[in-house]
Amino acid sequence: MSAAISPLAPKKYPKMPAIEGVRIATAEAGIKYKNRTDLLVMVFDEGTEVAGVFTRSKCPSAPVDFCRQNLSGGKARVLVVNSGNANAFTGKKGRETTAMTGKAAAEAAGARDSEVFLASTGVIGEPLDAGRFSHLLKDMVKQAAPASWTDAAKAIMTTDTFPKVATQTVKLGDADVIINGIAKGAGMIAPDMATMLSFVATDAPIAASVLQDMLSRGTAKTFNAVTVDSDTSTSDTLLLFATGTAKGAPKITDPKDPRLAQFRRALNKILKVLALQVVRDGEGARKQIEITVTGAKSARSAKRVALSIANSPLVKTAVAGEDANWGRVVMAVGKAGEPADRDLLSIWFGDNRLAHNGERDPGYSEEKTSAYMKQDEISIRADLGIGRGKATVWTCDLTKEYVAINGDYRS
Amino acid sequence: MSAAISPLAPKKYPKMPAIEGVRIATAEAGIKYKNRTDLLVMVFDEGTEVAGVFTRSKCPSAPVDFCRQNLSGGKARVLVVNSGNANAFTGKKGRETTAMTGKAAAEAAGARDSEVFLASTGVIGEPLDAGRFSHLLKDMVKQAAPASWTDAAKAIMTTDTFPKVATQTVKLGDADVIINGIAKGAGMIAPDMATMLSFVATDAPIAASVLQDMLSRGTAKTFNAVTVDSDTSTSDTLLLFATGTAKGAPKITDPKDPRLAQFRRALNKILKVLALQVVRDGEGARKQIEITVTGAKSARSAKRVALSIANSPLVKTAVAGEDANWGRVVMAVGKAGEPADRDLLSIWFGDNRLAHNGERDPGYSEEKTSAYMKQDEISIRADLGIGRGKATVWTCDLTKEYVAINGDYRS
Repeated sequence: MSAAISPLAPKKYPKMPAIEGVRIATAEAGIKYKNRTDLLVMVFDEGTEVAGVFTRSKCPSAPVDFCRQNLSGGKARVLVVNSGNANAFTGKKGRETTAMTGKAAAEAAGARDSEVFLASTGVIGEPLDAGRFSHLLKDMVKQAAPASWTDAAKAIMTTDTFPKVATQTVKLGDADVIINGIAKGAGMIAPDMATMLSFVATDAPIAASVLQDMLSRGTAKTFNAVTVDSDTSTSDTLLLFATGTAKGAPKITDPKDPRLAQFRRALNKILKVLALQVVRDGEGARKQIEITVTGAKSARSAKRVALSIANSPLVKTAVAGEDANWGRVVMAVGKAGEPADRDLLSIWFGDNRLAHNGERDPGYSEEKTSAYMKQDEISIRADLGIGRGKATVWTCDLTKEYVAINGDYRS
Repeated sequence: MSAAISPLAPKKYPKMPAIEGVRIATAEAGIKYKNRTDLLVMVFDEGTEVAGVFTRSKCPSAPVDFCRQNLSGGKARVLVVNSGNANAFTGKKGRETTAMTGKAAAEAAGARDSEVFLASTGVIGEPLDAGRFSHLLKDMVKQAAPASWTDAAKAIMTTDTFPKVATQTVKLGDADVIINGIAKGAGMIAPDMATMLSFVATDAPIAASVLQDMLSRGTAKTFNAVTVDSDTSTSDTLLLFATGTAKGAPKITDPKDPRLAQFRRALNKILKVLALQVVRDGEGARKQIEITVTGAKSARSAKRVALSIANSPLVKTAVAGEDANWGRVVMAVGKAGEPADRDLLSIWFGDNRLAHNGERDPGYSEEKTSAYMKQDEISIRADLGIGRGKATVWTCDLTKEYVAINGDYRS
């Protein structure tokens, strides 16, 4: 783990309100880390609805398989998350661990087995012994309290250098409803999903099918639009819980319900804030990079070109070196395999247009652009000039610290 | 440029024989570098046939456009290569530069404009002034001599830390024919093409169409199977020249001619040796990594999975850290988007089977594998267990030096 906190960490954290119907406990189970919490339990009131989005890896972790199975029921009573071991590629033992943890959690919370959700993050391929922590669940459920959201975010960190939280309060009908979210993730971050782990809860009374609709749409431009290193985790899990405890709020059962508009915007904002925090805590990151591609053949094509730029080690190292090396953006557009015409391509770093119509912009100022590159939020735009497709993705720079962190993470 | 020579550089270089019909000259044009050669001219006897393979970038350099156009003629008399500036994304000026250089070279060599081939390597997006070097061509053509292959390899280096040469002598019919090759490349290396620049010449009398057939097939398992950083250059150029001057060798005009077998093997060997030297000089590289995927649905699918592993920053940093973190290989298989079944997957590092049937191999020895990781040639195999598709690709580790080299290359 990196000792220093990312220079891109939030200057201040929001005060996280309690959400009625959600209680939180954390513990030091010593699964891998010492002298820090590594186990999180969230307990939900009866009637809590749930939706989820998961990694598209062909090698998903045992907890991802477990959650996918339980998600069909649409109901949640308890979430158990551990850090330090991903319980991924652990075969039959991995399935035994999720089954045993699930049973212990259900028993502790007085819930059905199908109302338990699990997530694990950490090293891949090491067997995770449920016996290390399942005996703690009963006490944790008892002691769980409403206001420990930041503690929750801390318990699920791995190479993260700061806890990631976000909150919004909005109207649903005439009632105020709250949405809280936490996330973890710093490396092995790429669509789809890019989050590794994120948990969002609200007291709004919204049916599971509606939650799922909003969550699936919301991830496309948030968690599925960020990349740290192009490496997709086996464990990516984003869950959204709705306790329905907000007093006076109307029950929403149709994703097209017009009363949802404000809630949907607030949810998308939470997802974006959390996803950007993951980028801003990218392993070794010192700069956030926003990449917008316009003028592509389609939005899908624009996103592919944007990710080609975002995942290029040469673009990322140039930004780390504060070098406005836009030739590498040309390279990344060229290699994307998407429709593009070299002689119509324009490139901006911030407001500085560096390239236009297939060559260096005559008005290009090296001095002005070099000054811009010293900022800690860099914005790159490429206009392909051939259509109306548009997309934005976010990444971070690639520094020596990324290599240092990942050259000896496991040992 | 990195000062230190790659630890993976060849321990000794072959003595490069002269090839009748090929004369070489180099010069210090001062295009970007000082106190070193940066300009190469190869002059070919009349009747020399030529074939080529180029980058698939949608933003190819002006010299790539120029070569593609002249290649249809199938004849070559002169090759001009400069390092220090790629003449890529240079618009109309770039085309003027290739036209002017082409004319000057044709005049100097007494050749037709269509018999000139050009290549440029270096920074993208800076205008390249032909006036800086075109006046040198006449003298260079005059002074060109047969035996300067290693000098030729040195003149085209950019961030390379050693010159890349290879030679083979084989029978064609009853005659001995020679194949010589040079290459440059260290970063911005990924299929397709992966070479940046490579030039191979032979005295064998082989028709352009046959050369093209052999070259296109030969690159698939050599230059198009290596990656340093997943970034594809705008300038990749591989040209194969045949002077036809070998005494007593039969003229080959059919790619299916059985007399070609030995020549084809030797050519493929040259391409592979040069491609591996590019990997072994990968920016910051300290280890070569060979990745073989077996048991895939098809050869094409196997290659995609192999490249997913080879381009994963987390796999590459783990190898740099001498950490047998095979969980990251699981991740890279999972994210490749190709058919795979987690529970049938097996993984080897060298002879050590680490994972089998979806979990850690019971016989796994951390100690033995850690000892293996200290070697400077690491071999990783993943068997997907679902088919008979197979592919091998090569890459290098990702070290802090890669970041250092690319964080301030342009300035």
